[in-house]
Amino acid sequence: MMEVGFIGLGVMGRPMASNLCRKGFRLVVNDINQAAVQELEGLQASSAPTPGEVAQRCDVLVTMLPNSTIVRQVLLGPDGAMAQARKGAVVMDMSTVSPETTDALAAEARARGIGFVDAPVGRLAAHAARGESLFMVGGEEADVARVRPLLEAMGTTIFHCGPAGSGTRTKLVNNFLAVSLCQLNAEALALSQGLGLQLERTLDVLYGTTATNGQLKINWPDKVLKGDLTPGFAIDLAHKDLSLIVEAANAARVPMPLAAAAREAFSSARARGYGDKDFSAMADAHCETAGVAKPRLSSK
Amino acid sequence: MMEVGFIGLGVMGRPMASNLCRKGFRLVVNDINQAAVQELEGLQASSAPTPGEVAQRCDVLVTMLPNSTIVRQVLLGPDGAMAQARKGAVVMDMSTVSPETTDALAAEARARGIGFVDAPVGRLAAHAARGESLFMVGGEEADVARVRPLLEAMGTTIFHCGPAGSGTRTKLVNNFLAVSLCQLNAEALALSQGLGLQLERTLDVLYGTTATNGQLKINWPDKVLKGDLTPGFAIDLAHKDLSLIVEAANAARVPMPLAAAAREAFSSARARGYGDKDFSAMADAHCETAGVAKPRLSSK
Amino acid sequence: MMEVGFIGLGVMGRPMASNLCRKGFRLVVNDINQAAVQELEGLQASSAPTPGEVAQRCDVLVTMLPNSTIVRQVLLGPDGAMAQARKGAVVMDMSTVSPETTDALAAEARARGIGFVDAPVGRLAAHAARGESLFMVGGEEADVARVRPLLEAMGTTIFHCGPAGSGTRTKLVNNFLAVSLCQLNAEALALSQGLGLQLERTLDVLYGTTATNGQLKINWPDKVLKGDLTPGFAIDLAHKDLSLIVEAANAARVPMPLAAAAREAFSSARARGYGDKDFSAMADAHCETAGVAKPRLSSK
Amino acid sequence: MMEVGFIGLGVMGRPMASNLCRKGFRLVVNDINQAAVQELEGLQASSAPTPGEVAQRCDVLVTMLPNSTIVRQVLLGPDGAMAQARKGAVVMDMSTVSPETTDALAAEARARGIGFVDAPVGRLAAHAARGESLFMVGGEEADVARVRPLLEAMGTTIFHCGPAGSGTRTKLVNNFLAVSLCQLNAEALALSQGLGLQLERTLDVLYGTTATNGQLKINWPDKVLKGDLTPGFAIDLAHKDLSLIVEAANAARVPMPLAAAAREAFSSARARGYGDKDFSAMADAHCETAGVAKPRLSSK
Repeated sequence: MMEVGFIGLGVMGRPMASNLCRKGFRLVVNDINQAAVQELEGLQASSAPTPGEVAQRCDVLVTMLPNSTIVRQVLLGPDGAMAQARKGAVVMDMSTVSPETTDALAAEARARGIGFVDAPVGRLAAHAARGESLFMVGGEEADVARVRPLLEAMGTTIFHCGPAGSGTRTKLVNNFLAVSLCQLNAEALALSQGLGLQLERTLDVLYGTTATNGQLKINWPDKVLKGDLTPGFAIDLAHKDLSLIVEAANAARVPMPLAAAAREAFSSARARGYGDKDFSAMADAHCETAGVAKPRLSSK
Repeated sequence: MMEVGFIGLGVMGRPMASNLCRKGFRLVVNDINQAAVQELEGLQASSAPTPGEVAQRCDVLVTMLPNSTIVRQVLLGPDGAMAQARKGAVVMDMSTVSPETTDALAAEARARGIGFVDAPVGRLAAHAARGESLFMVGGEEADVARVRPLLEAMGTTIFHCGPAGSGTRTKLVNNFLAVSLCQLNAEALALSQGLGLQLERTLDVLYGTTATNGQLKINWPDKVLKGDLTPGFAIDLAHKDLSLIVEAANAARVPMPLAAAAREAFSSARARGYGDKDFSAMADAHCETAGVAKPRLSSK
Repeated sequence: MMEVGFIGLGVMGRPMASNLCRKGFRLVVNDINQAAVQELEGLQASSAPTPGEVAQRCDVLVTMLPNSTIVRQVLLGPDGAMAQARKGAVVMDMSTVSPETTDALAAEARARGIGFVDAPVGRLAAHAARGESLFMVGGEEADVARVRPLLEAMGTTIFHCGPAGSGTRTKLVNNFLAVSLCQLNAEALALSQGLGLQLERTLDVLYGTTATNGQLKINWPDKVLKGDLTPGFAIDLAHKDLSLIVEAANAARVPMPLAAAAREAFSSARARGYGDKDFSAMADAHCETAGVAKPRLSSK
Repeated sequence: MMEVGFIGLGVMGRPMASNLCRKGFRLVVNDINQAAVQELEGLQASSAPTPGEVAQRCDVLVTMLPNSTIVRQVLLGPDGAMAQARKGAVVMDMSTVSPETTDALAAEARARGIGFVDAPVGRLAAHAARGESLFMVGGEEADVARVRPLLEAMGTTIFHCGPAGSGTRTKLVNNFLAVSLCQLNAEALALSQGLGLQLERTLDVLYGTTATNGQLKINWPDKVLKGDLTPGFAIDLAHKDLSLIVEAANAARVPMPLAAAAREAFSSARARGYGDKDFSAMADAHCETAGVAKPRLSSK
């Protein structure tokens, strides 16, 4: 049976490693926090005093660490764990790090002839505790196949996003939306309060419209993502609404930086001829600005 | 049976008035576009040459016009339709206008002893054609009761948001989210393209997470909206992720103005002591900045 | 000698009208504030009870009012002062209003066969009191010639910017810079404080560099404004600096919304191939985005 | 006579080192670009094959390198140049790097008992060539005294900003203003073009007002910086102007992201009670948001 190394027993790592133990995997763990190590030892894990010794003893090495700097310290360089890894081992980094860090890990793994998978985690610590995490996975098919049993033991949803580095990059796109939505929601609720509306009634409305139920999922695949820009609701009209919104917010002294930035983005799209296109065509307008290909679903 | 005046037969007004005719209401219509008027006459509506004459002939006067300026021209002042309205009539403006305009209409109605309801329309023209619109309604209970049969004939979802002016204000909050989400989505997809990800796989992930399925609906009522700020995911961590995101986007030359503005909002929340609070607490941080009450659901 | 009507005796209007009186002009004044009217009467001005009666009695009618709505109420429409103006009169509006308002005034003046000049005021009330204002003037040469003696009596600097409407538009461009600079300065000083620097020393440096002394004036005419984009300091380097700045500010929890927005603008310019151009070429990059002509000084 | 090591002979480093040679300093240089090394050898500099060997041979070690990563590689760690430096040497880093990098350099220097000065460079390559650079210097008095002859040979203006790290931090504040001003100017000129104004006339006006001639220098020391918030021009009025500006720009389809962000900042200041304060009080409003001390000049 394969030996699994697990370095990083923090808020997320501890429940993840615990689930591996409970489902029968043989773990060698390491963390600077000895209390966390002992907790895992209580679940039949063994431990090693350094990342390097963990690496020497296992076939798959999992890292779940706080940031790019620590991931690099633990894994890279002549003293890093990768240098100690067995031939044929796979390293799976599940930390949220920069694409450059993931790419550096993948390059070092390749240079040392070991496998590499990046698999950052979606959802929250409570999901991790219940084994219900979501994983965004980058790596070669063969490498991903080897770590898949571990992922299935820790979570319910596994997205193989592409080659090494794709997991980290997909996580950034995903968390951009999840996190920025907080500020968008915050501005909406501040505006509701500033305009003297009753919170429950505002939420009733928002819950019944595209304001919360995901137009990216429901409307966009039939519009911009297949290249149909005919207006269901035109960018010119959306810009008119944003203008009313920003004026009303300024009159009520409710600052709304994202609303203001969004309005300028619509203004920019109008300046470039998108005014009479569907408002989902903001995706095309913005990809044009960024010099990247317009987003289109491949036809089946 | 009541007579219904309907002024404004544009993209939205035409299908709405048509539905009223089909469901048996007696309409008197007016528009500068005679083709639209004739279309309604084909559905048994009568017409009047001026807004004022429409007002003289009906019990309920509906307006569905392009903007605040035109609404004011049609309804207000010594020559406006309100000045011609029958005693006891109700005016229902369904246009998307500024709160000041709605308040001016409500004030003039009150001064003239007639009822007033603001009922802007959610969803798109295609929904209006099928009688599936959503309405955000402001007005006194008695006035709303009188127009409710009309609303039921034109749509499926009626939200009575509060007194006169509440419909217009709720629409602004709602459309702020619906429209700004386009730019947020646009930045996410541009980033996905800029990072070289495959579109379908990125969407698969986004469709399975809070990035699209409405944390405002699913998570917030159990967190900030009932005052629970204990971190499921802390603002400090969200800020760390936004920092990675903005750095990666700048390295890939994908401009992301909303991401950048959101990051500064999180930075501002951290500066004011919210770093260790749940990321839904951005609502509290922002309401504090705006000097409005924090959003809390009333306990049942 | 010509009779000068002056409507609007507020913070700016009162010292301006006073200077006209002191320099020998015969004034007919009007304001809703009777104390202000009496003050001017003490300087030998006469008064009229309504704007219309002022208009009937004068050759040049000056308005200095708080906002677009009031300017329209006073001047436009069948009851407005323009309708009462003498044939051959000139109206000079010195208020800060929207371009639409100015254009509406100019159109009504033209329709009534009277002259029109827009001449909003630069500098502050203290300058107005000393007769040291700056005026941004739009209008036909002949009309401007007629009001020039008044302008010379109220200020020291007169810019004839072009036809009617040019004064108002120039004022908007000017005040955009003057006012936005406050927030730019505010972010700079907050960053200085957040980084623990000593204020006096920071200012000493800023006072000695292009950070405060107007690169638009000193450097730009020799670079982008004559089409020379060879890099003195390249946009790529400027973007690198902004990245360091925004990172340092976020680490210090100093929110900097303009810095963040500026960085995304540089990112956008880089995405469109401007990275190796001089940083003044941001003007070209932005004009391109806006779909307007690149700014070039005409060669002499 | 002291030996001066100089590592980094790029666009800025080459003219700086050349000036040192010309003014009689004995240089030992190093760069990966051998052409640059030979150029300096032509000016009587000697060279060494590695940074470490440069360090072994000199009393003062100057580095002028492209970014934080390279600076760390050259100077830090067991193989870095600092490890080879003579006892009693001084290292002066003139690169533009992050504060963390500068702090790491200063800490390593302290640990090794050598002096450290950070002295990033203001102004452009053309100034460096003429020996007219400006330096923002951080370090102990004694260390700064030792490098001062070098600085005087390379530039005309030396600001000692405070202890080690102050030079780097001051440069960030300074360059934030210098670089962001480009985008601010760009938006102003795009608006001028979008509104149909003549460029030369717009510039004439801007050159005559506070829009370009440094209110931070001319007005602020007498207002917010000494705590006088009485309004010369109130934040409420500035916000009104920004509202006119943003509306006019959106109507003309000229996107202005900084204008929009600035307006929200003014809206935020108004929400917190600053509306009737002088517009320079934006500095207080923003420092309050950032949780840092308000900027006040010490009274003499």
